[in-house]
Amino acid sequence: MAARTVKLAVIPGDGIGPEVVAEGLKVLGVVAAQHDLAIETTEYELGARLWHRTGETLPDPVAAELREHEAVYLGAVGDPSVPSGVLERGLLLRLRFDFDHYVNLRPVRLFPGVDSPLAGVSPEDIDMLVVREGTEGPYAGAGGVLRKGTPHEIATQDSVNTRFGVERVVRYAFAKAAERPRRRLTLVHKDNVLTYAGELWKRTVEEVGAEYPQVAVDYCHVDAASMFFVDRPGRFDVVVTDNLFGDIITDIGAAITGGIGLAASGNINPDNTFPSMFEPVHGSAPDIAGQGKADPTATVLSAALMLDHLGVPEAARRIEAAVSADLKTRAQSDEVRSTSRIGDDLAARVAEQG
Amino acid sequence: MAARTVKLAVIPGDGIGPEVVAEGLKVLGVVAAQHDLAIETTEYELGARLWHRTGETLPDPVAAELREHEAVYLGAVGDPSVPSGVLERGLLLRLRFDFDHYVNLRPVRLFPGVDSPLAGVSPEDIDMLVVREGTEGPYAGAGGVLRKGTPHEIATQDSVNTRFGVERVVRYAFAKAAERPRRRLTLVHKDNVLTYAGELWKRTVEEVGAEYPQVAVDYCHVDAASMFFVDRPGRFDVVVTDNLFGDIITDIGAAITGGIGLAASGNINPDNTFPSMFEPVHGSAPDIAGQGKADPTATVLSAALMLDHLGVPEAARRIEAAVSADLKTRAQSDEVRSTSRIGDDLAARVAEQG
Ligand SMILES: CC(C)[C@H](C(=O)O)[C@@H](O)C(=O)O
Ligand SMILES: CC(C)[C@H](C(=O)O)[C@@H](O)C(=O)O
Repeated sequence: MAARTVKLAVIPGDGIGPEVVAEGLKVLGVVAAQHDLAIETTEYELGARLWHRTGETLPDPVAAELREHEAVYLGAVGDPSVPSGVLERGLLLRLRFDFDHYVNLRPVRLFPGVDSPLAGVSPEDIDMLVVREGTEGPYAGAGGVLRKGTPHEIATQDSVNTRFGVERVVRYAFAKAAERPRRRLTLVHKDNVLTYAGELWKRTVEEVGAEYPQVAVDYCHVDAASMFFVDRPGRFDVVVTDNLFGDIITDIGAAITGGIGLAASGNINPDNTFPSMFEPVHGSAPDIAGQGKADPTATVLSAALMLDHLGVPEAARRIEAAVSADLKTRAQSDEVRSTSRIGDDLAARVAEQG
Repeated sequence: MAARTVKLAVIPGDGIGPEVVAEGLKVLGVVAAQHDLAIETTEYELGARLWHRTGETLPDPVAAELREHEAVYLGAVGDPSVPSGVLERGLLLRLRFDFDHYVNLRPVRLFPGVDSPLAGVSPEDIDMLVVREGTEGPYAGAGGVLRKGTPHEIATQDSVNTRFGVERVVRYAFAKAAERPRRRLTLVHKDNVLTYAGELWKRTVEEVGAEYPQVAVDYCHVDAASMFFVDRPGRFDVVVTDNLFGDIITDIGAAITGGIGLAASGNINPDNTFPSMFEPVHGSAPDIAGQGKADPTATVLSAALMLDHLGVPEAARRIEAAVSADLKTRAQSDEVRSTSRIGDDLAARVAEQG
């Protein structure tokens, strides 16, 4: 019998979601056995199909059940047949907000052997951790429309930022920065234009920073940061930023590290008041769904973030080592592997590490 | 006597601003003579120094004088000795808003010979025109703070979008797209999260698009667009987007086309109700100010955008040809030229074209 049982809610979702999640669970199963963990999964059919059938995105009883798990593992949601925003707001963002995932953790790291679209960069040049706020900012959903459909129409969209919300994610980012060799934290915002929100972020970083004299802190406007991600990515170690800026710069981060097929993320509630949720940064990619073409690596790496969160870092490192080895061999081969074949190979590599 | 006199207000500004503007005016002088234009300049000392001396960023009488010009030519504003946002909001953005510069035009183009940080791209791969809205959105300055300095502090920042404001910039973008060989327009927004503003933008693009059946239209979320700028820049022709998204993606655009030293912009009032303003995308770069190290090319290219706006496109093309030739020779030489030397070379190349 396993020493510990982890109750995991699984939301395969839409498009390539089910395919990549299947591979993630495959790898997770192997590593769990090695670490005396039993992963007890319950699958939830949420996403486009449920919405078409019932008009619901997250029925209350399902939300209540999800809460009873230690973590949520999600593939991707979204389908062209569903109006833009319905599943994003009704399911994905609702989970992030309801489960108070105030840290959206996104490592940006170039694995050896992976082709970056940037010329002449090597793995040492790109190794950052983006700590994106996950529960407020422009994602609050606040705003409204007046005189819709007339020449006098006005639409507003309000970013809501609280000291409570900013401080807790900033504290998390400082704690992470303090653990890393370079011990550097960059706040990314746009305080010369978004003066109210920017000032709150900047002041909070200054105040919390006083408790971390060992961490070097600087500030970078989001436009400049977006440029530096491309022409000076080595400039960054830990980055802390608002929900929307984090959305944008982590996609640049994915691009420079070989694409969205490798980018992992954790929606974390560090207080463990609610289950945290782990998902690849990519979407449901309906154009390639069901063809075995999707790269499950991002989803597998998201499982590593989950294991870190669950307090089993050795298991997380094992998955990362397997991915790292797999990516190195890709560089040396022209073989195009299917989704499940990549999953098999990763599972075998994890198993080999004994 | 010249056939036409252009009254040009010049704001050299801070840091490297005066150096790069001097070179821009040098090149402009040569090309103007060739086209029977007299450029009558009036210089305005606005920026950090004025603010330190008087506490003012744009005195009303100066604003009134600026209005009497056909165009404004600006170097850069901003200095570390001035709190973030003071000059940006009090001078740069105030001019953009007061002079109703609803089109912020930013070509993103890779010149032959220029090193892109992207591996394996060539000039044909990157040739887009970003049409950034310039007078509303998150730049409205709307928002506020409650309970400042307490644990219950809230800061809001409101994006204001009007049908009037969105429609006019969208119309401009369609007109530009219709003139270009690829005739393609991409709306960049984040309508799955910023639902109110996004819906207005999307609906407006659809409606105006009905008048341009020859233009192929698509939509791209800002996060995906930021990624595509890096790993598939050829996907874009004309891009129309909101003020803040435009700020971010044009810096990515600058990065992929060889850096901020080459990126030009026009803050345009297409109705000519107010003078339009032309400036490099880069800032005042105080760290290299006064050393002759700044590249004046972006400022020179901004003068070309100005000549286009003033209805002298042959003069604009001449400047671009000179820049293009200059950039090609750079690739072949290790020589590091000073700011004024680059200006001299560009002026000579313009002159040579006879
Ligand atoms: C799907 C969308 C709502 C989501 C976001 O904007 O956060 C996605 O882009 C992400 O980054 O996880
Ligand atoms: C200086 C700043 C206010 C400005 C902006 O945000 O528009 C700059 O970044 C730009 O892109 O011209």
